[in-house]
Amino acid sequence: MSKANNPKLKSWVEVPAGSDFPIQNLPFGIFKTRYLTAVAGVAIGNYVLDLVYLYEKGFFDGLGLPPGIFNQEYLNSFIELGRKKCSEVRERISELLQIDNDELQGNIAARELALIPMEEVEMKMPIKIPNYTDFYSSEEHATNVGTMFRDPENALLPNWKHLPVGYHGRASSIVISGTSIYRPKGQIKPPDAVSPVFSPCMKLDFELEMAFITCANTELGSSITTEEAENNIFGMVLFNDWSARDIQTWEYVPLGPFLAKNFASTISPWIVTMDALEPFRVEGPKQYPEVLPYLAYKGKKNFDITLEVTLGEGKAKTVISRSNFKYMYWNMCQQLAHHTVNGCNIQVGDLYASGTISGPDKGSYGSMLEITWNGKNPIKLNDGTERKFINDGDTVTLRGVAKKDGVRIGFGDCSGKILPAK
Amino acid sequence: MSKANNPKLKSWVEVPAGSDFPIQNLPFGIFKTRYLTAVAGVAIGNYVLDLVYLYEKGFFDGLGLPPGIFNQEYLNSFIELGRKKCSEVRERISELLQIDNDELQGNIAARELALIPMEEVEMKMPIKIPNYTDFYSSEEHATNVGTMFRDPENALLPNWKHLPVGYHGRASSIVISGTSIYRPKGQIKPPDAVSPVFSPCMKLDFELEMAFITCANTELGSSITTEEAENNIFGMVLFNDWSARDIQTWEYVPLGPFLAKNFASTISPWIVTMDALEPFRVEGPKQYPEVLPYLAYKGKKNFDITLEVTLGEGKAKTVISRSNFKYMYWNMCQQLAHHTVNGCNIQVGDLYASGTISGPDKGSYGSMLEITWNGKNPIKLNDGTERKFINDGDTVTLRGVAKKDGVRIGFGDCSGKILPAK
Repeated sequence: MSKANNPKLKSWVEVPAGSDFPIQNLPFGIFKTRYLTAVAGVAIGNYVLDLVYLYEKGFFDGLGLPPGIFNQEYLNSFIELGRKKCSEVRERISELLQIDNDELQGNIAARELALIPMEEVEMKMPIKIPNYTDFYSSEEHATNVGTMFRDPENALLPNWKHLPVGYHGRASSIVISGTSIYRPKGQIKPPDAVSPVFSPCMKLDFELEMAFITCANTELGSSITTEEAENNIFGMVLFNDWSARDIQTWEYVPLGPFLAKNFASTISPWIVTMDALEPFRVEGPKQYPEVLPYLAYKGKKNFDITLEVTLGEGKAKTVISRSNFKYMYWNMCQQLAHHTVNGCNIQVGDLYASGTISGPDKGSYGSMLEITWNGKNPIKLNDGTERKFINDGDTVTLRGVAKKDGVRIGFGDCSGKILPAK
Repeated sequence: MSKANNPKLKSWVEVPAGSDFPIQNLPFGIFKTRYLTAVAGVAIGNYVLDLVYLYEKGFFDGLGLPPGIFNQEYLNSFIELGRKKCSEVRERISELLQIDNDELQGNIAARELALIPMEEVEMKMPIKIPNYTDFYSSEEHATNVGTMFRDPENALLPNWKHLPVGYHGRASSIVISGTSIYRPKGQIKPPDAVSPVFSPCMKLDFELEMAFITCANTELGSSITTEEAENNIFGMVLFNDWSARDIQTWEYVPLGPFLAKNFASTISPWIVTMDALEPFRVEGPKQYPEVLPYLAYKGKKNFDITLEVTLGEGKAKTVISRSNFKYMYWNMCQQLAHHTVNGCNIQVGDLYASGTISGPDKGSYGSMLEITWNGKNPIKLNDGTERKFINDGDTVTLRGVAKKDGVRIGFGDCSGKILPAK
């Protein structure tokens, strides 16, 4: 195990109880302040550690990092250094923040400049995303959707247990948590109408997902095995794949969802490294029928990350789903092996989302579609109002936390508010 | 009409009969030589005009172009200057190449350095493609596919005549003409088997398409009307959307094609500008039922571009399809208006492909799937061999030419050879 993951570590930076960002986490992001352009930082407690400042003051000397590696609008160049080098940087940051280390702690002037209170920063997109793929890897979600729209007796399509179904999404409309989203408009065909109408979406939904980010460029024609996969994954974020269910129903045959999805997707701002998630590995579900050899894998490839969705703000704010990333039928190594088995190349900064993460029981469903069963069973929020889908003015927030041995690794908020259609 | 489109213009650079690149074309691309890194150029006859050299020698003075605009690995920054500025540059290049203009013609030393024989250059990807969308806009193609795989009586799905069906594709695996492609491997389910097998693709296909490239960044939440659309389109290329039909059949429900497509797509190297295509506008097919108002348009939005596909090399080389871009049911303006009507933002360099362009008769089908009717009717090549789909070692070449008033605007080759699976 990485030294930086030791549950006994304490930092000289105050980490309030319940913080997502203890010294065992150290997620990477891009932030800006009133005074700084966008640069790379790491979260610790309620502070952002300015990596450009640390680099310039020599705190990373000896690591062989290229000049300017943190002084960039995106983390792509940094993560392109590869898993090993990024791990070394995280270890070094852990060292500097440990309570018995005096290098930064003892330098009052440097401390003041290196640590910026979170309320003074604005988080930016951490990654320039060259390619975005969305999988469909939760058995419970696929079963719920199949039951609702096809046949409860044959809810899963024949291919579902043989391969991690996925499709390409739109990279341009992936935005950072906190960005408001205009309700999309589009073609909707009411069930009894002859022709479609043009209308603001009337069945606006969220999808509770997680996504991983790759840190390598591969050659076209080459493949990544399940064994090699993790070496190509830098870390993870929360992902809300906003969905317009009524637009989707009309448009999606035969080539898949398009305008129902590409109006916006929201990610959480901090990339939690696979290193930080290492202690939270768990066994995945047993896969039957047996997968083809290229999808076979060894070891624990699922991760125990509890997920929660809230809808509404203020008094209305209500937890509407509690799920867990460990429910995924197909794991990230299988997803990446499948994606590249045909020779498709991956790029640094690609984002691969899990698909909606639903659990086995009703309280763990990862979309309004499933929670209200396509609007049939509205839910009540804490202010007494009801929802079938998402209303204008509603805020949806995803949260994710991995807990073990008293350590709490969080992802920060993945949040977005819906504005009326333009 | 642009002065540069005048059919009477002649260049002092020799343009052989049948050349794709007369002075009325002037397409933009990125090239490199043994001595130069990748930079921007324009095709004229059998030469490439080095735009960096022209810029540095002051031939573009007065146009207000940013320094280094042509000295880049991709054309993105150049086309981001917008339709108007790019048109001015094309007009200026036309001027410099006209037979009665002595500025460059009369400067023997400059001429020698500015004009590089095509056989001495290597063409590179002209654009860094942030997003790639593939439409499905040929009625004949959609009808053929629907007839083969669903119901000849209801070949088109209910949404097809109401919206330009499209889906997101993979940008990372789009390659330049001349790049060899490894036959993809993947899961295939033989019709009578219980489970899928892992195998090299046995039904490898091409798709004859064209694609347009956008030259603007829009805000998330905003839309582009059919009227505004053309101002956001810089130009077009030929596009071969290689397809693995057996992989596609098994994987594509319910989220659309994925590994059947993302192993490779090939584009032609020269971006023919919308300016150069201006004289070739024609009426599109009558659209019935009437489209929703946001898809309505005025004027001639289709383009008369004859297309041709050859299969094989040397003695085997055979024309297997003759089609035309004018057959498209949905035009580019409608595609872009539809794509953004939900607020999806576009980016500079995005590539939007038409979908397979099939014409009304058998000789004009744009894929092997249609030409051989899914392998039922093999075709004979000129060397006597037969093909149901594409064999290892086969080269597929798309060509496109618009002709009028003695002017011949061509796209160059869009060519790729299939290598055996790795």
